[in-house]
Amino acid sequence: MNFRLEQAIEMLERTPATLEALLSGLSEDWLSCNEGEGTWNASEVVAHLIEGERTNWIPRLEWLLREGEGKPFPPFDRYSHLNGAADASIDRKLREFREIRLQNTAKLKELIDSEERLEALGTHPAFGAVKARELASTWVAHDLTHIAQIVRVMAERYREDVGPWIAYLGILNKERQ
Amino acid sequence: MNFRLEQAIEMLERTPATLEALLSGLSEDWLSCNEGEGTWNASEVVAHLIEGERTNWIPRLEWLLREGEGKPFPPFDRYSHLNGAADASIDRKLREFREIRLQNTAKLKELIDSEERLEALGTHPAFGAVKARELASTWVAHDLTHIAQIVRVMAERYREDVGPWIAYLGILNKERQ
Repeated sequence: MNFRLEQAIEMLERTPATLEALLSGLSEDWLSCNEGEGTWNASEVVAHLIEGERTNWIPRLEWLLREGEGKPFPPFDRYSHLNGAADASIDRKLREFREIRLQNTAKLKELIDSEERLEALGTHPAFGAVKARELASTWVAHDLTHIAQIVRVMAERYREDVGPWIAYLGILNKERQ
Repeated sequence: MNFRLEQAIEMLERTPATLEALLSGLSEDWLSCNEGEGTWNASEVVAHLIEGERTNWIPRLEWLLREGEGKPFPPFDRYSHLNGAADASIDRKLREFREIRLQNTAKLKELIDSEERLEALGTHPAFGAVKARELASTWVAHDLTHIAQIVRVMAERYREDVGPWIAYLGILNKERQ
């Protein structure tokens, strides 16, 4: 196992600034492009990350630490960000993500005040027994997944434009993730 | 075709700040992890991006605009960054990348002073005829490829740690790019 709380927090703290550097002020053509029907653009991915801060990571961690294995997490709608305020500007979304992430990493430090807390068990509605450490690791890997998704979606715009160089560009040469 | 010079420049200009936000001050464990023997860590990817600025994108574009189809590009060693100053600190590499990228986007604007210039032809040693537009598009897609690579490599560290959530994490659930 590689998880260490302070390193996980390093990464969680960097995601908002990384997305701001990449997306703030970018042309609408970059922000609204997607990989086709039913796929997300960069702006929708940021909305999904905000929704995860609101309803997934910290609420589930609190639930796990409070309820233990007795009561499974309530279900989580991974598409709920597509309703609601998905049409806010990218800068507003990025600011909102930065603020809520800052609160949530502070909360994480409070909740996990010892190594033992990382081994606490809860019940996932589909997976059964899960540990606090697994939930926290997943939060980090989920950020990384969605950063990768955003850059992959944007690279897709140039699929035709790169001409023969497509042969050297891994990002355009594989099954969709 | 989706390529527009000013949008390509938006993206090229954002890559250094994006990588700084993600990597500056990060633990060595994150910076030095890779996907196994013969694969690159985040720090080596930044060295590769610097090398591309020095010897690939702008030098090839200048060559193409000067020589046309008559003389193929000189060969380019995609592994040359693994020799040389690969052991500089991440902050030094990030600073170097920012500086050379700034010079090169300025140069790009100078070199491509009209839409017609984008249609200029050169000869790639493996592909044959290529356009300036294809080279410039590839430069952008190459940035995005390597941002995706860095986050994928870092997510790999938590492959075991995420436990059953691996089922929901696209980044850990596919063939290597």
